[in-house]
Amino acid sequence: MTISRPEPSARSAVDPFIAMDVMSAAVAREATGADVVRMEVGQPSAPAPKAVVAAARAALDGGRIGYTEALGLRALRERIARHYGERYGVDVSPDRVVVTTGSSGAFNLAFLAAFDHGARVALPVPGYPAYRNVLGALGIEAVEIETTAETRWSLDPHTLAAHHAARPLAGVLVASPNNPTGTVMERAALAALIEAAHERGLWFISDEIYHGLVYDGEETSALALSDDAIVINSFSKYFCMTGWRVGWMVLPERLVRPVERIAQNLFISVPELSQRAALAAFDATEELEAVKAGYRTNRDILLARLPGLGFDEILPADGAFYVYASVRRFANDSRDFARSMLDHAGVAATPGVDFDRSRGHGYIRFSVAGSSEEMERAMDNLERWLGKAGI
Amino acid sequence: MTISRPEPSARSAVDPFIAMDVMSAAVAREATGADVVRMEVGQPSAPAPKAVVAAARAALDGGRIGYTEALGLRALRERIARHYGERYGVDVSPDRVVVTTGSSGAFNLAFLAAFDHGARVALPVPGYPAYRNVLGALGIEAVEIETTAETRWSLDPHTLAAHHAARPLAGVLVASPNNPTGTVMERAALAALIEAAHERGLWFISDEIYHGLVYDGEETSALALSDDAIVINSFSKYFCMTGWRVGWMVLPERLVRPVERIAQNLFISVPELSQRAALAAFDATEELEAVKAGYRTNRDILLARLPGLGFDEILPADGAFYVYASVRRFANDSRDFARSMLDHAGVAATPGVDFDRSRGHGYIRFSVAGSSEEMERAMDNLERWLGKAGI
Repeated sequence: MTISRPEPSARSAVDPFIAMDVMSAAVAREATGADVVRMEVGQPSAPAPKAVVAAARAALDGGRIGYTEALGLRALRERIARHYGERYGVDVSPDRVVVTTGSSGAFNLAFLAAFDHGARVALPVPGYPAYRNVLGALGIEAVEIETTAETRWSLDPHTLAAHHAARPLAGVLVASPNNPTGTVMERAALAALIEAAHERGLWFISDEIYHGLVYDGEETSALALSDDAIVINSFSKYFCMTGWRVGWMVLPERLVRPVERIAQNLFISVPELSQRAALAAFDATEELEAVKAGYRTNRDILLARLPGLGFDEILPADGAFYVYASVRRFANDSRDFARSMLDHAGVAATPGVDFDRSRGHGYIRFSVAGSSEEMERAMDNLERWLGKAGI
Repeated sequence: MTISRPEPSARSAVDPFIAMDVMSAAVAREATGADVVRMEVGQPSAPAPKAVVAAARAALDGGRIGYTEALGLRALRERIARHYGERYGVDVSPDRVVVTTGSSGAFNLAFLAAFDHGARVALPVPGYPAYRNVLGALGIEAVEIETTAETRWSLDPHTLAAHHAARPLAGVLVASPNNPTGTVMERAALAALIEAAHERGLWFISDEIYHGLVYDGEETSALALSDDAIVINSFSKYFCMTGWRVGWMVLPERLVRPVERIAQNLFISVPELSQRAALAAFDATEELEAVKAGYRTNRDILLARLPGLGFDEILPADGAFYVYASVRRFANDSRDFARSMLDHAGVAATPGVDFDRSRGHGYIRFSVAGSSEEMERAMDNLERWLGKAGI
């Protein structure tokens, strides 16, 4: 038979999530027997809380792990709604809560439900690369807006307004604490940005996945400021449940049924075992606060030692578990630097180009979600390598 | 502040997956204390095999459940590749295997990697509704082609060619065994259709999620006929792991990296616990074959009793675990019929309009993946209700 082979789609030419490529390289290096300090992926080294694991065991004992309603187990939606009362003093109806397959599932659903093909969505940069890559795959234009120290690396209302005036936007997405920087937006700054978005009829998406992990300053949920924001969160970070793939969204009411229809078709449902386990996560505060204290210690180790090693600029790491530092003294291209660092120092970290396509060549992101011993070892390895390299 | 509230996107107006809506209605009815025989969703009532549950327990004991490589755990990719040798005598490289978050994750990835916005993809009807709904949400036009008894409810090469000639297609997707009918394509018919697609430069997607569940005739993997097909499968059906959300794809080599890039951004990774558990699924054949024998018994109960109740046409149920039957003697609209049946007979089943938007008004899909006792009870309930209704 004559075969005419079709080609991959144009939209499949999205950028890779470089952190995941570094992860593959790190796993491959470990497989050769090499010791690697894994600081490339934003993942707690701690396992899920004991109560979560116990709930998972109980679910396994309970029989079939099956499909759930597309919006998630009612009990979990109710528990998440209660969390907003307990933590932020905000009243949220369980009907507005949607359980998702990680925050990744939430972004996919929110983008499809809110934006049509060709819509433009503003993203502050540096930021999480999957925003722009997923938007791109879904035919939505990511309008990347570079932030600077002047606005403390946050998007400000004037800049948003100017971009919208130049060419209309359909939405804006911010994260606080931010990834890769860890920078937290002040309440007034967040409120002003939400107002600017609402006044212009833009969807406001607030990625709150690093809530619970703030060391300096205070976290504010967009739900405390607006009932029309799309708020995305997850059990992956504070709750130490990355590989369980369970997160959530709180939606304005008119988005719930559109999201439900898309979720029914695109996901069917969220892993049931993870949903049952996540029910126990909100009661594991003592254990999780101890883990958080470890991140703070780790952050402080890097903040203390990196400058002496020659990393001469570090962005405000108020929260999350990252340190985003300049590598301009060592290299012109942070991808080369990351590759060499993995090969020669046994430290895996993610080049800044993942988060900021132009300026990121000069930066690298370290995750400090490992153990303090690993942090010290990584700094020791860097000291030895950078010393030898004669920099 | 003046708020201008944005509206949901136009593409969020996809059809619901009606089976999931019926599921919500059935769950709500059960919550009132009513007894409902659940035949609406395609889900084994049997739990996952013992070895799978044991592997899940071991993974919980093993510590953190974390991110894996975006393409899946290497060990699972290798085990799936081996399965093609063992079951079909086909040599498949593990590099071409991608682990996905259920077959749902696979469709999302395959559609994005193969088709651009505005592309046209042929789908035989009746068929699984999420195909057209997901394609629609992703800006791809679903070209629904009605099949008839004349071609044994399968898409034939001539019809495909005629549609492509009228307006070019970019791909075609078929399932065998099919959902909702259970109909199996003969090897020669599948080979001819693949050839017709390849000759015209169309992507050929073969949904093989019901493989392992064939009672009459023989299943053929598209991989036995072509190394350029996109083959999608899952642990949900034969392997009884619906709620675990783990499936897979086998791809032509040139699609692997595009799919990896999209998966890194859109999913990050597949639930690790489910991946570790799935590793044990291929060795649970004895247990799973017993479950399969139950489906056959159940199918035969419905095939024996439904005609006497007035369901006067049943499509060829060669495999899967569905019976797709005409309700034209009872109602003009199968949605009304399904609603009444749930309310008055306590039997939940899915109206045919989910699977065939025009002719489906005359059909209903029963899942026979429950217990034989449930099947008999459902038939008894229907007999009582339809008798009373005086039909």
